[in-house]
Amino acid sequence: MSAEIMSREAETMNWEPRFASRAAGMRTSEIRDLLRVVDQPGVTSFAGGIPDSALFPLADIRNAYQAVLADDASASRALQYSASEGDPALREWIVGYMGRKGVACEPENILITNDAQQGLEFLCKLFLSAKDTALVTAPTYLGALQAFSAYEPVYDDLRLADTNRTALSYRDAAAAAQGAVKFAYVVPDFSNPTGETLSLQARRDLLRLAGELDIPIIEDNPYTDLRYDGEDVPAIQSLDLANCGSINASRVIHCGSFSKVFTPGLRVGWICASSAIINRLILIKQASDLNSSAINQAVAVYLATQLFDEQVKKARESYRLKRDAMLNALAAYMPEGSHWTRPEGGLFVWLTLPEGFDSVSLLQKAIAEYGIAFVPGPAFFADGRLRNTLRLSFSLPDIAGIDAGIRRLAALVRSEQRL
Amino acid sequence: MSAEIMSREAETMNWEPRFASRAAGMRTSEIRDLLRVVDQPGVTSFAGGIPDSALFPLADIRNAYQAVLADDASASRALQYSASEGDPALREWIVGYMGRKGVACEPENILITNDAQQGLEFLCKLFLSAKDTALVTAPTYLGALQAFSAYEPVYDDLRLADTNRTALSYRDAAAAAQGAVKFAYVVPDFSNPTGETLSLQARRDLLRLAGELDIPIIEDNPYTDLRYDGEDVPAIQSLDLANCGSINASRVIHCGSFSKVFTPGLRVGWICASSAIINRLILIKQASDLNSSAINQAVAVYLATQLFDEQVKKARESYRLKRDAMLNALAAYMPEGSHWTRPEGGLFVWLTLPEGFDSVSLLQKAIAEYGIAFVPGPAFFADGRLRNTLRLSFSLPDIAGIDAGIRRLAALVRSEQRL
Repeated sequence: MSAEIMSREAETMNWEPRFASRAAGMRTSEIRDLLRVVDQPGVTSFAGGIPDSALFPLADIRNAYQAVLADDASASRALQYSASEGDPALREWIVGYMGRKGVACEPENILITNDAQQGLEFLCKLFLSAKDTALVTAPTYLGALQAFSAYEPVYDDLRLADTNRTALSYRDAAAAAQGAVKFAYVVPDFSNPTGETLSLQARRDLLRLAGELDIPIIEDNPYTDLRYDGEDVPAIQSLDLANCGSINASRVIHCGSFSKVFTPGLRVGWICASSAIINRLILIKQASDLNSSAINQAVAVYLATQLFDEQVKKARESYRLKRDAMLNALAAYMPEGSHWTRPEGGLFVWLTLPEGFDSVSLLQKAIAEYGIAFVPGPAFFADGRLRNTLRLSFSLPDIAGIDAGIRRLAALVRSEQRL
Repeated sequence: MSAEIMSREAETMNWEPRFASRAAGMRTSEIRDLLRVVDQPGVTSFAGGIPDSALFPLADIRNAYQAVLADDASASRALQYSASEGDPALREWIVGYMGRKGVACEPENILITNDAQQGLEFLCKLFLSAKDTALVTAPTYLGALQAFSAYEPVYDDLRLADTNRTALSYRDAAAAAQGAVKFAYVVPDFSNPTGETLSLQARRDLLRLAGELDIPIIEDNPYTDLRYDGEDVPAIQSLDLANCGSINASRVIHCGSFSKVFTPGLRVGWICASSAIINRLILIKQASDLNSSAINQAVAVYLATQLFDEQVKKARESYRLKRDAMLNALAAYMPEGSHWTRPEGGLFVWLTLPEGFDSVSLLQKAIAEYGIAFVPGPAFFADGRLRNTLRLSFSLPDIAGIDAGIRRLAALVRSEQRL
């Protein structure tokens, strides 16, 4: 047998037993595998929670890169290693932005991250030991569950609407799981995946519960500027500051992002929190990837200072029409027995089908026979419950595509109901 | 007392007890605090292990961003979310690059990371449970220790030159520390911090030891293309492939970077390994920050395909002169009793002062009175040993600055010897 043939037949190593115990929580999901195929022509995707690239301010982004690279001194700075905490001018702009949201803070309270996802990764790295409890809404953001799960926590349901859970019951459950409650995680505005917004009362209740448990609240707020109607509800961090008096005394940790308003291509987000937390997170940032791309941060400064309000206005107008198209189509086509959320902003509608529907198996049929895709609801639960739910994103298809796609979804649901 | 005054006096929360146990390993170092001040005018810095920004190919980088953003379709792709595993064209280029290094592989063997540092972070996340043992050379790369330490490992010295450690002794020591040996980590070419290159024999010895221990080798190779004289030594991964026959059977995990040849501003590096490992790392990438910046990856493709060889040549010529200047100055000025490495490439010289010198306290005097900076040796040891050593980087000062700076360093050493 030639060496070449032997080499092709070489056995691969069995890596599983060599991994850390946390690797067991990192399996790929059947849902992710299904959604790999939605980029086909002919499929209308309501799956991806991603911004519409038609809204990217391309001319301004071209100008921004050109401006940053224009003279050699500025270009060299933008292409060198840079401060782990982030670009000073960008942190300064975010201080102003957070101030307008009612959060008085200083640059020492801001860490630049590779978008909000890296912020979540850092926060669970900082807070979660194995068997500690993370309080999450059910459903919650899929990416948060992915980030948290690598640190082997236990999940408990964060319930804000009913009162059958007390601080004591959370604490007892965490102790029974051999850990402590370490934080509560929420997406307060136009939540991923439901599109719902926490009421002022729910925010106050959450602050009271977090106070009783003496835990931090992670307020993940990437959609907050995409409001299409209704009134702004104050950020949880701003409500806390009104009580505790200063950001450095606050238990709320706010994660923000430029991805939904501008572009995810820059990979720029931030964490706003007590400097005691930011100082630890800077060490985590150093150890994780030294710093975020300096050139992309400089471009973010350019875009934020030149056109933030204008870009928010443009995005709101476009997404409002798409949201209306989706809600109108759902009302027009969906058969009896289903219900859905009516978001005031963001990118998502949460659809609940009649009991007995299985959105995971429905997705296969939807892609193959109806040319539509969505994310099955179980992806957004730590325990995969509520198989009769699904997330619809209205950000990508155009108005006609939304109408036609929801009409096909309704036809699929109707045909399944007949079976 | 007014509300405003109260707010300023509000007590900050005591966060320490709320953190995960791993946070104890994330303290900032006295050395890092000292080095914060080296960016002053009048200080010649031999401290930062960073590339010379005068070598950044600015015109090509401007052209690259312009080309990627030129038409709307390409720009929109470059600014959208993208595949966690990385840009297909970039992975394809790296496949060719690794092939030229003797590592036959496929795109499925490549993950794009935010530079090599993120690769190290992901690998310790994948392999290290608390109390597991990481084998590292002493000294080793400071950033690797920072990345690993968050996962609470035990360190053991990887000795490649002497033979008083056997696989059994490593295994026994790891078991006594209540864990297992999980990997060996090396920077084989022009190492950070010593500038030394592992000999072919040392690489073969390491592969044999790793085989006996049945562990992976992490080969961190960001400086490999910056060779100024001598002959290339084959990558450890290529030596392993010559034995085991295929990348998917290899126990070597190779980390690469575009930061030293092109620019660190893109934050683009990669891991080349068995697809069984890459598949797990893709899940870690998703959970950590979803994907690396698509626009920066597209720029990396442009630069790599247009001018890699030319840029390597330019960097080699410039750094060779600087290395020569540093070695000549050390020979000319340093008093008896000190010795140093003579690197064939990379950015670093490792200086050993006579017994009794303390490079940490020396640094304070060096910055304040002699206008020079370096990194004290203890930073590169998990246990802070060898306080009479220090790392000198020749990448940033110009030739005259290197000569003058080493002359001042020699004067400082001489004055301390007289005390």
